[in-house]
Amino acid sequence: MTGKKKIVVLPGDYIGPEIMAAGLTVLAAATQGTDFKYELIECPFGGAGIDQVGDPLPDETIQTAQQADAILLSAIGGPKWDQAPVRPEAGLLGIRSALNLFANIRPTQVSPAQIERSPLKGENVTGTDFVIVRELTSGAYFGQPRRLDQDEAVDTMYYSRAEIERIMAVGFQLAQQRKRHVTVVDKSNVLATSKLWRQIGQEFSHRYPDVQVDYRYVDAMSMAIIAHPAQFDVVITPNLFGDILSDEAAQITGSIGQIPSMSIGVNGPNLYEPIHGSAPDIAGKGIANPLSMVNTVAMMMAQSFNENQIAHKIQAAVDYVIAHKIVTSDMGGSQTTASMTQALVDFIREEN
Amino acid sequence: MTGKKKIVVLPGDYIGPEIMAAGLTVLAAATQGTDFKYELIECPFGGAGIDQVGDPLPDETIQTAQQADAILLSAIGGPKWDQAPVRPEAGLLGIRSALNLFANIRPTQVSPAQIERSPLKGENVTGTDFVIVRELTSGAYFGQPRRLDQDEAVDTMYYSRAEIERIMAVGFQLAQQRKRHVTVVDKSNVLATSKLWRQIGQEFSHRYPDVQVDYRYVDAMSMAIIAHPAQFDVVITPNLFGDILSDEAAQITGSIGQIPSMSIGVNGPNLYEPIHGSAPDIAGKGIANPLSMVNTVAMMMAQSFNENQIAHKIQAAVDYVIAHKIVTSDMGGSQTTASMTQALVDFIREEN
Ligand SMILES: CC(C)[C@H](C(=O)O)[C@@H](O)C(=O)O
Ligand SMILES: CC(C)[C@H](C(=O)O)[C@@H](O)C(=O)O
Repeated sequence: MTGKKKIVVLPGDYIGPEIMAAGLTVLAAATQGTDFKYELIECPFGGAGIDQVGDPLPDETIQTAQQADAILLSAIGGPKWDQAPVRPEAGLLGIRSALNLFANIRPTQVSPAQIERSPLKGENVTGTDFVIVRELTSGAYFGQPRRLDQDEAVDTMYYSRAEIERIMAVGFQLAQQRKRHVTVVDKSNVLATSKLWRQIGQEFSHRYPDVQVDYRYVDAMSMAIIAHPAQFDVVITPNLFGDILSDEAAQITGSIGQIPSMSIGVNGPNLYEPIHGSAPDIAGKGIANPLSMVNTVAMMMAQSFNENQIAHKIQAAVDYVIAHKIVTSDMGGSQTTASMTQALVDFIREEN
Repeated sequence: MTGKKKIVVLPGDYIGPEIMAAGLTVLAAATQGTDFKYELIECPFGGAGIDQVGDPLPDETIQTAQQADAILLSAIGGPKWDQAPVRPEAGLLGIRSALNLFANIRPTQVSPAQIERSPLKGENVTGTDFVIVRELTSGAYFGQPRRLDQDEAVDTMYYSRAEIERIMAVGFQLAQQRKRHVTVVDKSNVLATSKLWRQIGQEFSHRYPDVQVDYRYVDAMSMAIIAHPAQFDVVITPNLFGDILSDEAAQITGSIGQIPSMSIGVNGPNLYEPIHGSAPDIAGKGIANPLSMVNTVAMMMAQSFNENQIAHKIQAAVDYVIAHKIVTSDMGGSQTTASMTQALVDFIREEN
């Protein structure tokens, strides 16, 4: 494609817009003077969607997003909408479904410089570098029937073979570009959906003889992520297990405020978002750590636009502020969102 | 009740019988010369049940267990039965269901002496002392319909109000005997069963005004267990989430080979078991750590028989062998199962 790239911006709630502004400022600096041209299209979404148009996922937002080249989303939700008839999270589930964003990709890395921030002992966490590939549009979050009254409630976990095959394909192909090791996570000693999950995992292990495959029950996996995280490369999990395990994995890095994620679909645009929440307690104070959104922007540049140079420029700026402790209080510094963003921009301008 | 207590023994698979023997040897030593009299009734169960009578949970085992005063179970399952039409785990789910063992209680404690064994940094894990109360006979593990063919699979998560109320009652009452703090875990921003779970949690918070209650999504909880475990007291969770979180919690202690658990029913006997698996890799070598089973026996003496003195005697012996590093290789020592058990027995005899 040529011409201006269309980036749909969903600024989010509470600290969402604060860190989105920071990410877009860094994007502007990093693309200045390059051939990469883009246009930002902001749409109502999440809590802001409820406030503006009474819907966390307005039809127009879906249509605009479907035609975008990439979607940038910031943290959504919060106590303001606790009693809303439809909550901001419904927008998140809705956009995943509407855009068929079936694969959520979450890197979990612990660099030597950041080991001290991990709650794990150095010897337990050293060398950790894996990616969780979470199925995102089926399983317990979407299965029907779903029912709730005063006396009972039902959710349905459902997986079709086709849904499992397409997420396995993403995971196995990713492993071929990495350490050629896949861990298939399930609860196949109890759940029917997990039996099918494991069976298809075994079929893929035959189709990809160059990839080493092992299988873990989700409970054992929640232990292994703490005890021996460095053993993993690509971890493929159903939707619900992936929700739990990917947050656990993020926690062992000690750097939740820095981790980006990507959700990929079938033909449409990818969606990029930080993994953390909207942090209502610090919203409006100008002290939110912008790094997750900045890393999210870098991920978008590399993955959706193949602009690796621009992505590297942004990553170098991130490494620089961390190394010089030009960081917000959650990382032990005393910067504001604005001053930290300015330091990132200054670094990028000097490198240019 | 007077007379001999009936203890049903389900010795388990692989290292199961090895540590069961150790636990029973310690039980004999600790009760010698006391008024506590008991009779052991061994029944086929799990993999051993499949091998002996073709069923992981024979009817006779259920009937005998129903009439017992307590049930001691060791680790079950393993690769030997991977292709069996009915697997050992089905026996575990079956006995939970048949005996209505709806509440699984798992203590998570990190004593100062054991902090060094934790994969977490000392400052993260110090002061950890909480109990997970896991619903054990409903939820995703038991809901119907359940379906599996080559092309799709379905599991059902189901909870009734009555099922949630009885587990909440166990948790809130336990909190009243502890630090008066309950954490209700759910995924109520997505799942219908979790919405009912949280709603009933809120009702209980009004019924127990002396108990402080907070609410966590399961993904956030998987982070908090690593980041700030000392904040928790009693954690009440649905079946599937409890499976994952209780193993994660066990891992942060660094002492999986030592943790007992208890499952309580409505009127019948409680079931006691170590939390770890059957460790096929070290079975038959005589090197399995017996402490989990020994601690399981102590838990049974205190909880089912109110024999706190005997329980303390056993715990003192456990503290002694740990302090003097008379332990198996998984704890950094060089003892065998037999020699470690002998050290426990010797300590108990001297104290007598
Ligand atoms: C907000 C919630 C619906 C969402 C999820 O569980 O998928 C979030 O936790 C995530 O992981 O993206
Ligand atoms: C073996 C399995 C069925 C069981 C469970 O998941 O309940 C085990 O993991 C446990 O936690 O007791």
